[in-house]
Amino acid sequence: MKTAIIGATGYGGIELIRLLSNHPSVEQIAVFSSSQQGVKMTDSYPHISERFFESLQDISIEALQGFDVIFLSTPPGVSAEWSSKLSAAAKVIDLSGDLRINDPAEYEKWYGRETASKEILNKAVYGLSEWNREQIKEAQIIANPGCYPTAVLLGMIPLVKSGAVDAATIIIDAKSGTTGAGRSASAMTHYSEMNDNLKIYKVNEHKHIPEIEQELAGFLNDTVTITLSTHLVPMTRGMMATMYASVPEGFDEQKIKEILESSYKNTPFVRVRPHKQMPSTREVNASNFCDIGWVYDERTKRLTLVSVIDNLVKGASGQAVQNMNIMFGLEETAGLNGLPVFP
Amino acid sequence: MKTAIIGATGYGGIELIRLLSNHPSVEQIAVFSSSQQGVKMTDSYPHISERFFESLQDISIEALQGFDVIFLSTPPGVSAEWSSKLSAAAKVIDLSGDLRINDPAEYEKWYGRETASKEILNKAVYGLSEWNREQIKEAQIIANPGCYPTAVLLGMIPLVKSGAVDAATIIIDAKSGTTGAGRSASAMTHYSEMNDNLKIYKVNEHKHIPEIEQELAGFLNDTVTITLSTHLVPMTRGMMATMYASVPEGFDEQKIKEILESSYKNTPFVRVRPHKQMPSTREVNASNFCDIGWVYDERTKRLTLVSVIDNLVKGASGQAVQNMNIMFGLEETAGLNGLPVFP
Amino acid sequence: MKTAIIGATGYGGIELIRLLSNHPSVEQIAVFSSSQQGVKMTDSYPHISERFFESLQDISIEALQGFDVIFLSTPPGVSAEWSSKLSAAAKVIDLSGDLRINDPAEYEKWYGRETASKEILNKAVYGLSEWNREQIKEAQIIANPGCYPTAVLLGMIPLVKSGAVDAATIIIDAKSGTTGAGRSASAMTHYSEMNDNLKIYKVNEHKHIPEIEQELAGFLNDTVTITLSTHLVPMTRGMMATMYASVPEGFDEQKIKEILESSYKNTPFVRVRPHKQMPSTREVNASNFCDIGWVYDERTKRLTLVSVIDNLVKGASGQAVQNMNIMFGLEETAGLNGLPVFP
Amino acid sequence: MKTAIIGATGYGGIELIRLLSNHPSVEQIAVFSSSQQGVKMTDSYPHISERFFESLQDISIEALQGFDVIFLSTPPGVSAEWSSKLSAAAKVIDLSGDLRINDPAEYEKWYGRETASKEILNKAVYGLSEWNREQIKEAQIIANPGCYPTAVLLGMIPLVKSGAVDAATIIIDAKSGTTGAGRSASAMTHYSEMNDNLKIYKVNEHKHIPEIEQELAGFLNDTVTITLSTHLVPMTRGMMATMYASVPEGFDEQKIKEILESSYKNTPFVRVRPHKQMPSTREVNASNFCDIGWVYDERTKRLTLVSVIDNLVKGASGQAVQNMNIMFGLEETAGLNGLPVFP
Repeated sequence: MKTAIIGATGYGGIELIRLLSNHPSVEQIAVFSSSQQGVKMTDSYPHISERFFESLQDISIEALQGFDVIFLSTPPGVSAEWSSKLSAAAKVIDLSGDLRINDPAEYEKWYGRETASKEILNKAVYGLSEWNREQIKEAQIIANPGCYPTAVLLGMIPLVKSGAVDAATIIIDAKSGTTGAGRSASAMTHYSEMNDNLKIYKVNEHKHIPEIEQELAGFLNDTVTITLSTHLVPMTRGMMATMYASVPEGFDEQKIKEILESSYKNTPFVRVRPHKQMPSTREVNASNFCDIGWVYDERTKRLTLVSVIDNLVKGASGQAVQNMNIMFGLEETAGLNGLPVFP
Repeated sequence: MKTAIIGATGYGGIELIRLLSNHPSVEQIAVFSSSQQGVKMTDSYPHISERFFESLQDISIEALQGFDVIFLSTPPGVSAEWSSKLSAAAKVIDLSGDLRINDPAEYEKWYGRETASKEILNKAVYGLSEWNREQIKEAQIIANPGCYPTAVLLGMIPLVKSGAVDAATIIIDAKSGTTGAGRSASAMTHYSEMNDNLKIYKVNEHKHIPEIEQELAGFLNDTVTITLSTHLVPMTRGMMATMYASVPEGFDEQKIKEILESSYKNTPFVRVRPHKQMPSTREVNASNFCDIGWVYDERTKRLTLVSVIDNLVKGASGQAVQNMNIMFGLEETAGLNGLPVFP
Repeated sequence: MKTAIIGATGYGGIELIRLLSNHPSVEQIAVFSSSQQGVKMTDSYPHISERFFESLQDISIEALQGFDVIFLSTPPGVSAEWSSKLSAAAKVIDLSGDLRINDPAEYEKWYGRETASKEILNKAVYGLSEWNREQIKEAQIIANPGCYPTAVLLGMIPLVKSGAVDAATIIIDAKSGTTGAGRSASAMTHYSEMNDNLKIYKVNEHKHIPEIEQELAGFLNDTVTITLSTHLVPMTRGMMATMYASVPEGFDEQKIKEILESSYKNTPFVRVRPHKQMPSTREVNASNFCDIGWVYDERTKRLTLVSVIDNLVKGASGQAVQNMNIMFGLEETAGLNGLPVFP
Repeated sequence: MKTAIIGATGYGGIELIRLLSNHPSVEQIAVFSSSQQGVKMTDSYPHISERFFESLQDISIEALQGFDVIFLSTPPGVSAEWSSKLSAAAKVIDLSGDLRINDPAEYEKWYGRETASKEILNKAVYGLSEWNREQIKEAQIIANPGCYPTAVLLGMIPLVKSGAVDAATIIIDAKSGTTGAGRSASAMTHYSEMNDNLKIYKVNEHKHIPEIEQELAGFLNDTVTITLSTHLVPMTRGMMATMYASVPEGFDEQKIKEILESSYKNTPFVRVRPHKQMPSTREVNASNFCDIGWVYDERTKRLTLVSVIDNLVKGASGQAVQNMNIMFGLEETAGLNGLPVFP
């Protein structure tokens, strides 16, 4: 397969290169950037020296012909513009948030910019691999989920769908490593002030909120309004969503266990832990796994559910490759077989 | 003042030494241990070389005469046994959990051991300095609060007390640096597996739960049952409690602001931030501050309240010194004036 | 290929499992331990759940029949005893230090215990892949190099061999992540005291000193005595050896460049950087690369040479797999193709 | 005393505020900046809220009247321009490198800009407190030492001065926490790429080299040329200089011990450790200590000397306050009595 990455210089891009380089069906990885034409990838990333030899090309329809799949790992607005043109010739997997929100008003409210065209939004399939596999198979454009939504939805969908939690009570306390904030140096992620420190940011204001609400609503057949706090943890990769919800009458530990386990028994990357065995983020480090731990508390009739992913893999580039595999009828785990790097 | 520390070799003890060494009214700091009699403190802690010259003494009633105040920084069970005897001659400040829980059944359920005698429990005053100042002034024995309860209660008491949150909806997602787990090496805090990792532990099972519930109940005049998750963050010091609760009709952003600000306007160590300006743990590092940030969300009518402390200072030894100051009629900030060490 | 790992519960073992699991020629990985017979590997390492299903077996000659290669990742003394017996039926790769030191007196001096038999020492080939490839091909037993020796020797051999440095002036300032200290919890690697801290240990007393001196001597045809300091850096993986040596008359920047580049032009894992472009440890993270940076200083006629590896990969298990590949005539990079995990 | 800080928004400035705030003789701390006039310090640094109330003032001769001492914590060039004017009315302590290098040619070579005037350079006293105490007492302007020079010189001066090391063989492998790189966000100190990583930079090219060589030459009565590597360690504060040098005939472990101990027996901040007991950086964290460990190796006749400081305290602001104390005849430890913050 011939693949192209637009926006290859960010962390999403370099992680795609890592994964696609070891993918048995990938024979080409071309890299594109709007601003660094001609620059060798190894100038930015010496860790791929002697293994990856491509230089960045300018983005143009001509140059982007002949690929089987094109990944967009770009800032807001780019894929709204480009994905339609590109999808004529190739499958498109968009890692940005541009195509994830169906309701233009919601997109505009949370993103503060104009949404993509209705036509593209209609074509784009939300790429939560485990839950939309059938649509992904047929899709020409994938809106690859955000990192927080991936962690949250994989944990919550089974329970919301089956009524095992009261959706109106969902509270999500999410924590991320700093790579989620991208490669640009900033005061927020300056080592001297991020090290040995824990920060909370964008409380109830994160762009991923409408994405989570939209997808949960789909399984609930009703609107849902969540509370979401996001924290920055002094670690490079990894994301944990600690989720709380009330459990209605009629559900208990045993039923929750059955719901979770049956939901994921045939999926290669979601691992449901035994009751009370909680995962840590490092246990999925550099892998495409999502590990789910959970505790049902008899005292409060509340469920505490924990979902951990590597934000750059299952939360971004890994899930993109998983979606590519599904779209092209490949083994779902192709190129994603690596065990977590632990410790 | 002549001070003594029992259990001086742990992190609570060495932090007491740091704070008392710079306290203007302290002229002596004697150190005691059950197991290392005769050992110089600098053998365990070379960082105090050439400043602190005491050796550990064996614990006995005789050796513990002549002190104005005795701090117990000891494992469960020790202060249940010793505080009564010691309090005949000196004021006692107990940093363990032994004397915090009034209901013996609750203590035994959560701590898995027999409680202290009714007589001591009756004498012991819960040392949450900002809320029990008057009783602390008169107390002979202080049950110094735990780190999680300190962070949680300083945030929640004003709101529970005034009815600005529905106590039945309180959910606490707490995060701690690793020093909370003490000095003993363990798999949980082995550097290679704690670094660059985020762990969740003791979900709804932490010993600090009954302490929080008991104290909130006192301000609510009703029982309260909380949900508490505790996480271990890859950092040495620092604690953040992210708390969620529903806000009843009749309360809004402005009222919450007034409640929080009026509650702490005359306290030297609790700093209420402006709406939406959230504190990070490093901003109270090595200081006795508790910083409170908060966001009221109109969409969900929920309050997200964040409280940060240094778990070893306001969460343990600093609050103990603050209580000592109150008990002895000293300036409340004596010995605790240091600005946070930032970055 | 059928492989077995003795001492699979340590970091060397679990890293072997990670690498061998993705090796195209490996069909079995059996795990053995002296103390945890019957325990499932996933009990110790939940990160391999749903991918690795083996339980630990007791070590016995019978149980260890039928394997093509047996890895020993064991404490001192074990392979001295076992490698001879095991090597009758299988190729043996020993990751311990037992078989690395040819001179029994040196071994006993630095290791404080009796050496292995002369017969095994004679059979064992020092597995520095890049420099002993021909002997490794024929070997039945490999003494896999230590992490510090690997980093140091890959940097220094070309220069010592060609006379481009004065061997008597070699000073090595080495720094390691904490996984080099193993999985056992200890005061040295307790998170609370290792985080945000830099330690120096075993100055001129590290067991890897005789190993480095022996191997350099072989290329120098003379004895050599080095100065080696080892530091523990607050990071999980990674090792950097910063090396200093005087450059004799007749050598200059250009010659050093030629020596380094020609030495490694046909090796897949050693990457020589351009003059003054220095590598960081993260640039080889979780990979089998050794990256070499260097600066020749005209002012002092000294060379500063920096070599970085992942101590668990090229410094241990990765090199072991590389040696397995060489021994069995496989592609040298088989199972080791993963790009570094960066960031 | 009335004090002023020019360049108060950097890490040197905020650390001065922390130290001066607790100094018993300081009654005022005014803050100045070239670019943020009118901004409250707490806007940049919320951790000093409710304790420090000053806003930044514009730098002008008029505004800078009436202070006893003025600290300059400014980028290159500022103090070259301002220190002469300011020193007419107040004592000046310059934390920049502008006034440290006596030889204009050397300054211009390493700093790449024009040096300060001969008149100021002549007036400025190099503020290495322990070795220049008498001159500091009389000085109107202090050139406060750099962090690397402080760590290196405190370790090396006693030995160079007494001939216990061969100065021509000195090799310095220095490691720093990231605060040495300042507060400006940069790719070098971006958390995602600095965490869990070890970097080496500016090999033999660091501006602190001529400063070290100049000062050592003064004690040697001869020129000296050193090799210096600088590393960035994933930690916030702390610096370790690991130094190597050959020990001439006539010196041994006992003599080195006597030289080091006698050099510092009357200094409050330099602590010489027993032979082979090595300090870690955390053991001086947030304090003005410099701890020195050392190992004499009989095999190689080399000395390995390790010096650790907190780069922001003894390596910058703490030493500046120490110099202020000496200049004004105060207790040398005034305001600097805090024990290290450990862990």
